[in-house]
This record gives sequence, C-alpha cells and structure tokens, in this order.
Amino acid sequence: MRNDGRKINELRPIKMEKDYIMHPEGSVLIEVGNTKVICNASVEDRVPPFMRGQGKGWITAEYAMLPRATEKRNIRESSKGKVTGRTMEIQRLIGRALRSVVDLEGFGERTVWVDCDVIQADGGTRTASITGAFVAMTLAIGTLLEKKQIKSLPVKDYLAAASVGILSSGEAVLDLNYEEDADANVDMNIVMTGAGEFVEIQGTGEEATFSKNELFTMLDLADEGLQQLFELQKEILGELGESIGSGQVAQGEEI
Amino acid sequence: MRNDGRKINELRPIKMEKDYIMHPEGSVLIEVGNTKVICNASVEDRVPPFMRGQGKGWITAEYAMLPRATEKRNIRESSKGKVTGRTMEIQRLIGRALRSVVDLEGFGERTVWVDCDVIQADGGTRTASITGAFVAMTLAIGTLLEKKQIKSLPVKDYLAAASVGILSSGEAVLDLNYEEDADANVDMNIVMTGAGEFVEIQGTGEEATFSKNELFTMLDLADEGLQQLFELQKEILGELGESIGSGQVAQGEEI
Amino acid sequence: MRNDGRKINELRPIKMEKDYIMHPEGSVLIEVGNTKVICNASVEDRVPPFMRGQGKGWITAEYAMLPRATEKRNIRESSKGKVTGRTMEIQRLIGRALRSVVDLEGFGERTVWVDCDVIQADGGTRTASITGAFVAMTLAIGTLLEKKQIKSLPVKDYLAAASVGILSSGEAVLDLNYEEDADANVDMNIVMTGAGEFVEIQGTGEEATFSKNELFTMLDLADEGLQQLFELQKEILGELGESIGSGQVAQGEEI
Amino acid sequence: MRNDGRKINELRPIKMEKDYIMHPEGSVLIEVGNTKVICNASVEDRVPPFMRGQGKGWITAEYAMLPRATEKRNIRESSKGKVTGRTMEIQRLIGRALRSVVDLEGFGERTVWVDCDVIQADGGTRTASITGAFVAMTLAIGTLLEKKQIKSLPVKDYLAAASVGILSSGEAVLDLNYEEDADANVDMNIVMTGAGEFVEIQGTGEEATFSKNELFTMLDLADEGLQQLFELQKEILGELGESIGSGQVAQGEEI
Amino acid sequence: MRNDGRKINELRPIKMEKDYIMHPEGSVLIEVGNTKVICNASVEDRVPPFMRGQGKGWITAEYAMLPRATEKRNIRESSKGKVTGRTMEIQRLIGRALRSVVDLEGFGERTVWVDCDVIQADGGTRTASITGAFVAMTLAIGTLLEKKQIKSLPVKDYLAAASVGILSSGEAVLDLNYEEDADANVDMNIVMTGAGEFVEIQGTGEEATFSKNELFTMLDLADEGLQQLFELQKEILGELGESIGSGQVAQGEEI
Amino acid sequence: MRNDGRKINELRPIKMEKDYIMHPEGSVLIEVGNTKVICNASVEDRVPPFMRGQGKGWITAEYAMLPRATEKRNIRESSKGKVTGRTMEIQRLIGRALRSVVDLEGFGERTVWVDCDVIQADGGTRTASITGAFVAMTLAIGTLLEKKQIKSLPVKDYLAAASVGILSSGEAVLDLNYEEDADANVDMNIVMTGAGEFVEIQGTGEEATFSKNELFTMLDLADEGLQQLFELQKEILGELGESIGSGQVAQGEEI
Repeated sequence: MRNDGRKINELRPIKMEKDYIMHPEGSVLIEVGNTKVICNASVEDRVPPFMRGQGKGWITAEYAMLPRATEKRNIRESSKGKVTGRTMEIQRLIGRALRSVVDLEGFGERTVWVDCDVIQADGGTRTASITGAFVAMTLAIGTLLEKKQIKSLPVKDYLAAASVGILSSGEAVLDLNYEEDADANVDMNIVMTGAGEFVEIQGTGEEATFSKNELFTMLDLADEGLQQLFELQKEILGELGESIGSGQVAQGEEI
Repeated sequence: MRNDGRKINELRPIKMEKDYIMHPEGSVLIEVGNTKVICNASVEDRVPPFMRGQGKGWITAEYAMLPRATEKRNIRESSKGKVTGRTMEIQRLIGRALRSVVDLEGFGERTVWVDCDVIQADGGTRTASITGAFVAMTLAIGTLLEKKQIKSLPVKDYLAAASVGILSSGEAVLDLNYEEDADANVDMNIVMTGAGEFVEIQGTGEEATFSKNELFTMLDLADEGLQQLFELQKEILGELGESIGSGQVAQGEEI
Repeated sequence: MRNDGRKINELRPIKMEKDYIMHPEGSVLIEVGNTKVICNASVEDRVPPFMRGQGKGWITAEYAMLPRATEKRNIRESSKGKVTGRTMEIQRLIGRALRSVVDLEGFGERTVWVDCDVIQADGGTRTASITGAFVAMTLAIGTLLEKKQIKSLPVKDYLAAASVGILSSGEAVLDLNYEEDADANVDMNIVMTGAGEFVEIQGTGEEATFSKNELFTMLDLADEGLQQLFELQKEILGELGESIGSGQVAQGEEI
Repeated sequence: MRNDGRKINELRPIKMEKDYIMHPEGSVLIEVGNTKVICNASVEDRVPPFMRGQGKGWITAEYAMLPRATEKRNIRESSKGKVTGRTMEIQRLIGRALRSVVDLEGFGERTVWVDCDVIQADGGTRTASITGAFVAMTLAIGTLLEKKQIKSLPVKDYLAAASVGILSSGEAVLDLNYEEDADANVDMNIVMTGAGEFVEIQGTGEEATFSKNELFTMLDLADEGLQQLFELQKEILGELGESIGSGQVAQGEEI
Repeated sequence: MRNDGRKINELRPIKMEKDYIMHPEGSVLIEVGNTKVICNASVEDRVPPFMRGQGKGWITAEYAMLPRATEKRNIRESSKGKVTGRTMEIQRLIGRALRSVVDLEGFGERTVWVDCDVIQADGGTRTASITGAFVAMTLAIGTLLEKKQIKSLPVKDYLAAASVGILSSGEAVLDLNYEEDADANVDMNIVMTGAGEFVEIQGTGEEATFSKNELFTMLDLADEGLQQLFELQKEILGELGESIGSGQVAQGEEI
Repeated sequence: MRNDGRKINELRPIKMEKDYIMHPEGSVLIEVGNTKVICNASVEDRVPPFMRGQGKGWITAEYAMLPRATEKRNIRESSKGKVTGRTMEIQRLIGRALRSVVDLEGFGERTVWVDCDVIQADGGTRTASITGAFVAMTLAIGTLLEKKQIKSLPVKDYLAAASVGILSSGEAVLDLNYEEDADANVDMNIVMTGAGEFVEIQGTGEEATFSKNELFTMLDLADEGLQQLFELQKEILGELGESIGSGQVAQGEEI
C-alpha cells in the first residue's frame, strides 16, 4: 500500500484542460495528482540562426516553476540571473523528446516554442510536462494545418512520459509523488511513442544502484502507465489526433 | 461605448479564487476580465540583512509573466539573465503599496514574499496584482494569527488598485483593457486604502500630456472602481477581514 | 522654518552651466542646492532595432551616480553586473518625460542619448536630472538645426520637474533636500510642460498615505517652483529657446 | 566493419597516466582513442553550506573543454559568462555517479572536487571523464588514508562508464568515436559499478527511437566494455584499489 | 612642434581642485589639459575578507568614464553587465601604485576606496587618475590623523604618473594628448615616487617596437614631467604634505 | 644560490612539443620547469566586426588556467560568470605582443585565435604563454602558406618573453619560479623580438620600488634568457622559421 493508497502500478488522477490560456496557438493545463503544469505552445515564423536556410522547422522547450510551486519558496531564476542546471536538463529533455516524433521538414522554417510552467508541484513535473507539451505542440501545429499553411500534420506518433522508481522499501512503483520521490533509491523517467518505442530512458540511483531485473520491472510498470496516457491524449486531441502518423513525410514517402 | 461594451466607469468582471495553490500560506487567483494573476504569499522566518535586529518584519513582492501570457511570446527574464526595468518598477510598486497598510512591527522578524505571476494578460496586470496581493498577504499573515505566533492582525486597512486613462478619443475611462491601453494617451494607476487615502498615484502621458481637470476626472473614476474592489476583498476575506484595522499598533496605541 | 532656512514654497539656489563637457552635442551641469548632475546629450545617426524604418527618431536616457556622490559610498552598478531597480525606474522616467515634448518625426532616424550622471547628491536628483536633461537635449537637437540637418526645432514645449512632499510634521514643502526627503511621509515628483500640462505625476507614501486635499496642496507648490525653472531654462537656452514650440509638426500642421 | 576498423564490441585503445598534474591530491590523464581528459581531484576541508554540520563529506564534479579540443573552436564558457546546458548536464552526471560508490559519512566534512578537463575530443568525453574521475577521486581519498585522516577507504566499489549506440546502418556498437556519434540514431551512456549494478542509464534517440530488443543489445555491449575498464582501473590503482569495498561503512557495519 | 604647440618635454596645463565633492573624506578634481578626472577617496571601517584579522589596512581603486567623456559615446559598463578588460587593467594599476607608498599597517583594519571617474577625456586618463588619486587618498588618510584615529601619517612618499611615447614621426614626447596617443607607435606610463624610484613601468608598442635607447629617452622625459607633478602635489597638500615620509613605520622603526 | 639551485641568469629547463593537440592549425605544449601551457592557434575565416572590410587580419588571445593548475584550487571563471581582471590583463598582453610581429595585411580577413591554457603552474605562466603562443601562431599561419591561401609568411620576426625580478634578498634573477615570485619585491616581464627590440616592458613593485640601476640589471638578465628562447623557437619551427622576416610586407615593400 502506497502513502496515498494507490497500487504500485496505478497512476494518480490525470486531467488535461485544452485552450487553458487564450493567446498561445496551443495551450493545456495538465494535472497529475497535485502536480499542475501550464503547457503553452507558440508558433514563430522563423528558426534559430543555426537552422536557417535548411527549409526545416525547429521545436524547443522551456521549463520553469513558480517560486511557491513547492513546499519551500525558491528564488526566481530571473533574480539569480541564471538558469539552474536542473532546469536546463529538463528543458533539453522536453525539446529533444518532442522533436523525436515530429517531421521537422514538414512545417517550414518555423519554431514551435513549448513553455512548461509548473504552477504547483508534487513530484513528476518533468514527465507531466512532456505529456502535456505533446498535446500543446500538436494543437499549435494543428493551427497551421487549419490555416492551410501546411498540407498535412507532421506529427508522426503520440508521445508521453512516465516516472517509475524503487522505494527505500525495495518496491518498484509507477508515477511517484513528491514524498515517494524523496524516499526513492532509484528514479527513472521513460519517454515513449504511441508505437511503444523508447525515446528516452533516464535512470539514476543517487545513493543506490539497481540491477538488470529491477530495470526490467520498472520498464514494465512504465509501459502500463504510458498506455493510459496515450488514451487520454487521444481523447483530448479528438479529430486532430486522428491525423497523427498519417502525414506525408518529407521526400514524399508515406511512413 | 467602449470596445467591449462597458460604460466609462465600469470595471471588467472580477473573480478571486482563494487557496488556489496548495503550498503558500496565502494564495489567490485574481481574474479581471481576461487578465489572470496568481498571487502567492509566503512567510519566511527571517528578514533581509538590512532589516536584521530591529524586531520588525518586511514585505516584498516579485512580479513576472509567463512567456505567452501576452499576444506575442516574450523571452523569459531567466534566459535573458536579468530582470527588465518594467518588471522592477512593478514589483517595487507592489511591495511599497503593501507595506503602507501593514504595521511592520506587528509580525516579528519575518518576511512576507508576495509573488504575482501573470498567467494571462489583457491590460491592468499591475493593478490586478496589487488587489490580489493584498488578499494573499492578509491570508498569509492570518496564518500567523491562527497559529498564535502573533496576537493581533497587523494589517491596518484594505488596499486595492485601479487603472484609469484618457483614450485617444479624449474620453476618460476606468479599468483599461489591453486594446484601450495601447490606444490611450494618458495612463494612470491609483493605489488607495479602504479609508480613501492615496498610497500611490502614477500618471503618465508618453506622447500626450494632461490637464488638472483631466486629473480630477480620472481620480473620481478610480474612486468609483476602488469601492467595488474593497467590497469584493471584504467578501473573500470574510471573518479574517473583520480584524483589519482592529490590531493593536506598535507602541501600544489603539488605531 | 525648514532645516536650511527656506520657506515652504522656496526652491534651493539653481545654476546651470552650458557646454560643461566638451565632446557632447549638448552638455549642462545643473546644480540644485548641493545636488549636482552632469547632463550630456549625444546624437547618434541611427535608432534602436524596434524603431527602424519608421522615419522617426528616438530619445532615451541613462542615469547613474558616482559611488561617492552620497554620504555613504555605493557599490558601482558595473561591479554588481547589473543596474538596480531604482536606476531603471529613474532612467525610464527621464526618457519618457523628454519624449513627451518632442515631435519624434521631426528629426529623422536618429537617437538622442541623454546621460544624467549625479556627481554630488543632496536630494532631488531625478527632478534635477529632468530639468537639466531637457536643456542638454534641446542644445543637442539644436546642433542638427544649425548644421541644417533638420528644418525646424521639433521641441514642442519646455519641460521641467520639481519634487514636493509632506514632512513628518505634516507640512507640505517644495524641493526637498536629502534630510527632508529622509524625514518625509509622502514624496511626489511632478513633471510639467511650459504650458502647464502634466507629463508625469508620481506620488508615493511608503509608510504613510495622503488625502485629496494634501494632493492639491502639493500640486500647487510644484506649480510655483516649476514656473521659476522654466524661466531659468529660457534664459540659458536664449535664442534657441525661442524656437521651442514654433516648429512645424509632422503632417504639416502648425502647433 | 566500423570506420576505424574496430569490431562492434571493441573499445578504442585506453591509457591512464597517474599523477599527471603535480598539485592535485589525485590526477589522471585518461586517453580513449583520441579523446583525452585530464581528471584532477582536489580535497577541500569543508563542505558546501547545504551539507554543513551533518558530519558527512561531499563529492562534486566540474567538466569543461578547451576551446579547440574540438574540430571547430568553441567560445569559452567564461567569455559567454555562463555554463551551457550540456556542460551542466554532464557535470551533474559525473558528480552523481561518483557519489553512488562512496560512503559520504566515511571521510568527514570534506569536499572532493573532481575537475574533468577535455583537452582533445573525439567522442565519448563524458564516459571517459567518469572512468578517469573515479581513479582521480580514489587517489585523492587515498591520500587521506595515507595521512591517517581517515581509518578506512570509504570507496564501496569500482565505477566506470561506457557509451553504446545504434548507427544509422542499424548496427549497435560499443564506444562510439566522434564520427560514429554524429551518425548514430541512438546514443546511450551506461554507468556501472564493479559489481555489475547500474548507476545511471541515459539513452536518447534525437531523431529516432529504439525498441526493447535494441535496448537489451546495447546493455550487453556496454557490459563487455565495462569489464575491461574495471580491469584497467584495478591495474592503475594497484594496492590502493585492493581496499575498495573493504572499508567499514558508517554505523559500524561491514559491507 | 607638437599639434598643440607644446615642446617635446612640456606637460599640458595642470590644475587640481581640492574638496571638489562634499561627501568623500578626500576629493580632488584634476585637470590635465582637457582631461578631467574626479578622484574621490572614501574610508571604510573594515577590510575585504582576504585581509581580515591581520591588523592591516587595504587600498583599492576603481576607474570609470562617463559615457560621453570621449568623442564617441561609449556604452555604460553597468548596461553591459561587466567591466571591460581595459578598465580592470587601469584600476588594478592605480590600486597597486597607491599601495606602494603607504604603510598598510599604519591605519588599522580600514579600506580606502579611491574612485577615479573621468568626466572628460583627452589622453592620459590613467596617469592623471594616479596623480589625482594620490592626493585624494592622502587627504582621506589625513582625516584619520585629524580625528586622532591614527598617530602618524602612514604615507611614505609622494606618488605621481606621467605618460611618454614615440610618435609616428619618431619623436619621443612627454604627456601625450588624445590625438598624439592615437598616432603614437609606442606608449609608456611611468609611475614614480617622490624619491625618484620606479613603482610601475608599462611600455607597449602595439604595431611597433622600441630600442633600449628609445627607452632611456622616454624615461628621462618622464622624469622631467614627474618633478613638476610632485611640486604641484606638495602645493595642494600644504601642511599635510609635510608629514609625508615622516610617519613612524610599523614595528616602530623610523623610515 | 637560488631555491632550486639555478644561477641568477639561468632559465629553467624548457621543452616545446609541436602538434600536441590534433585539431588546431597550430598546437604546442610548452614546459618551463614545472609550468606547462597548451598553446592552440585556430584560424577562422572572418574578422571581428570592428575590423570588417579593411582587408586585414586579426590576432587575439585567450588565457585560462585549469582550476587545479595551482597549489590551491581556483573557482572556474565560467562558474563565476566572469573573467577576472588578471586574466583579462594577461590575454590582452599576449594578443598585443603577437600582433606586433605580424603584418596583419598579409593574411586576409582572417582571425587567428591563440588559446593559452595553463594545465600546471609554477610561476611565469604569462611569459611561457607568449613564447609558446608565438610558435603555435606561426604554425597556424604556416598552414595558410602550405594551402597556398597566402603567398608569403607575414610573420616579421621572432617573439618571446621572459620574467625577471628582484628577490627580497635584493638579488636580481631571471625566470622566477612560483616560490621566488611570491618572495620577490619587483616583478618584470619583458617581451622582445628576435632583433632585440622591446615589444612590452611591464615592471611593478607592489610593496617595493626599484631604481634605474636595478631596471638596467633586469633588462640585461632578460636579454640573456630571451636569446636562448629564440634559439629554441628556431629549432622547433625548422624550415617554416626560416621564412620569418622574409615575407613581402603590405604595400609591396621588402622589410
């Protein structure tokens, strides 16, 4: 029995609210238990300098927390004058993950900025961010389709993330809340596509290590959780979601 | 008739949701039309270095916007590595305003941090921030009373802010939305106490100037709006609000 | 009787020395009592990126203090690696005020930089800066007229600033020196045009508040002081000053 | 056949030179093919603020590259005024990995700083850094033992890292050089203890994804390479290496 | 004949105005031709961390230019967020030079900050700064003597600086103005004590080199100029100057 | 007798290893006693903005130390977020010195970046850097000759640097090691060309001063050491070195 009564393979209650903020091309408020993240996707009609002239688009992400999203107030990164290593790691992860399921040649020299702002944190903010960011990004790219600026949706597959870990009790569990996360010996984040392929595996044991068997157990738990996340994403994306994976890829080949 | 059908002395619809975020000692989501600001107040058990050893508390504020709170995405201040002049002006204003209605000697060597994070912007973010920040701050200080860490509420009066301005048409209006703000020749923010005393008056005409008569008209409009804001604050603060102004001030004198 | 023997509506002795520094297009040393500010205006033949291609000019200001302009030495902002909130507020105010009396379409795609460097401080540095900056800016724009790079002087009116306040004794006074400023409950800066229109009103009561009557008393005091400042500006600008307000405004209309 | 003639499960030639730099308590130059990293471990007699008073030590790592360690010269991070996200990710990884095999309670309130400076890069700089850093750190802690400042070596096990990946040809290979790394679809770094337990798994497919079978193949390849790295570490650490894992752990229990 | 009619061994007209700014313990405006530098010396009752507990004082200098001290406006270092290499070199030089003639053990754990702010530049700003800074510093330390906080003046000798150089014509000259400086092949700054000992020699030929004979010629020219500077310093320091070199040095030995 | 047994006019053993790092166009590891500096020269096909369109090249240098190059670990400048004054002074010196012996018009609009990274420090790092940097730079420019991108070698003369100083014993010595440097009263660095002309003289006495006679003694000692350094440079540059000074200078004149 876990500290909040869940089973070891049980996700916390999840909600996604579409069009949460009015200005962005795509916007979602994702809630995973008490963790709440606003995911806003913005389309900009140019790419960063290193991408110019290649006829391809770019997707990048930024991640931040409100100072009091957490139990103890954190100093704002703008006040510190720099972004912490943790933030950089997370936003690089989110951007990389999103790019893995999008055909960058399929939406012109545009940038999609995905901002994940955690307004309330209770563990799993990076996986919630990825799951919500995918929806916000797809909605934003969908507006290009709607405005006939692109011919087909260049999103190749669904994408979601789940956390798994091994508690100090030795038990492997799915979707750790803050208290569990603080207690865990091993912490692993899995990013996966709708087709069940891995996009990222990041497993770490700060004071502990883990065996191959434990790795396999965690991968299985993650898989269970991810299937539910994909279902929820399909539901919220509705008709637009049906176009995922149907797009003509660059160079005219069907996937 | 204004661009959204309001009368010249009409506020936009206002809502405040108490305890919006779970961790802070005081938390309010304030919505003024489409402008939405999360105001979180945190109590820290120490004061900044320049205040130490005086037996007094301190109140300070920070203000920020999500990158896509606005029509066009803004670069994060953490990425720029510095806080802009506009942000600094606003957060200094909020802090100064809050301190004017609190007896700093009444809550010990503690700091109340009030974070105003704009998640959606449509004009009037600084006045909405002040109005919401007052409620969040009062709730936070109220927890000290509840935990019997202080004997009486050191909040001396209500505090709210309203914007007024003169549109390019020459008409003076209350509570400008973004479109009106962009059009206005004169922009003025008034911060006032429940007793009707001024705390701050900031009026500016970037490309235009204004006469003494126009000033008086704007002051009257602001006054009308502010009365409604005080009503709403009373309602949301409920029983705690009744203690405002009743506290024993420092040096043992009743107000 | 005030701490330096002045009457409540009496300015401190004021001097302006034209062409104080040899390189700038416009340069003034303004002394208001013991407050001394070097105001240098520089003309640059281009505008900032956000203004390009509009055929208009731009005016911007920077403000700083020598480390030992004050009683206690301050750390240089260049050593801190950032500009403080107070400095940003003041330089934004100066720039905004100057732009309000200049027809930006009247001097081509040029920038006038006005640097206000306080070499000695005794209260009222921001109002002295504005009063001196107006003269330095007008001299600098005058050199464009002299060199026949513009046809008429695009300065629409005089501009000066005065401080007023309410001392702890309850008395409203004009032009506070440092000691008075430290004592005052309310501090207000008024920026006005030669025609008597307001450009900026910034009134604040950090630990105190003020009534509408007190506001009116302060506005009247400011008005008295400002008339003397305009006289002094006229005297120092001489013949060039006579062209103020006579220029053909954009769109071919006489003012 | 790989681009440099190696077999898919073949490491590049590896050398470690002990005591490479004269000042540090532990110093190793590690060469993995053309990749060369100076690993210097320094012992400082205090811990960072967040660790003070707990009677425990701390281990932290920094990573950098000379500007021309790479084919194209990079701008120094000191000139940029900030550390990049990539650098932060790597140094956080190295520090975390080292801490996983050390009993922090076993060497007092001291910090071991491990600096990994890449002087020549040809792929695999982060895994070479970890493998070399472990040796430098162990040597540094060994000096405490020698000076009798600690009673036993608090290093619990060997630690090394290897990279594996899937080339665009679909082939899984061990220890990618720069050219292979640029070509690879999937890039994975495995950090493991001498006992064969995982410490970190970081696998990522920027433009591609990978299946569970591919994951298993890569884990096996990494395992082969890591055994060779442990052998080399044992050889270079000699007698000191024999004390690894023999130390008395905190709370007086034998491991 | 030089561009301003001077002889090769002729200094520009020099003036020093004592007590130029009212707040600092020592203040001098030094004018060397058109070069004008405000030198303010401040006494602080503590030393920097690396000097604490040694019973000695510290002397440090900062140097800056107003943005429009020069022909073309420079961006403020506070806006850039960093101090340039040129500024750092100059302020390190000034501080080092001042410390060479002061017995640091002779004024307790105090810091003398000497701020050299160039308000108008026409070549030779660093040598003018040193010559003026010495006077400001001595005045500041003199106030400690006056207030009986120290027993004798710990200034061991006079200190001044002069520039010499070799013009493109091949002629060696004393005290270069801006135009000469821009033309010169070799630029040398000499800092010397009243007793004729060298404190600093910095000679550089950016695009040219210089022979031993040219070096000797320049040293002689500098010597001529420096004698005049010492005379002027004596005159301005008056009675206080007579105590220079008379102080009892640390450990009770007469100099 | 010196602390390491050398004669007063004796250099420490010197070694230079050519092509030390594989990527740069020119690379040298220079060892002067225990001081070791990697000097890498990189050719970039463009010049900095202030040099564009002049048909000339640019040479610039950067200098850094590994954190543990020294007895006590230093904080990285990238972590501090800024380059120290000492580093800036040294890298400006190296760049200036290199430019003095190169005909900048002789290698097109290219930049040569010379990175001097001290991996082990024992005094004299800046002079070792200059001596090594000259070789690395010449090798890099030599590759342009080899690739027939320039017609002749635009290096006009050899360039090397030596340190001299006066120990607390009063003895003048050549090439100070760290211990001597810490003890010395006067520290002087001399940069000279193969033809015996001075490029830079930087002499400083932090707590002491020096006479003209002492200056002459130091200049003679430096001269002795520099002749040996030129011999070594000739040897390592071999055939390429023979082209030094033979190049046709700009404007078609033979040197």
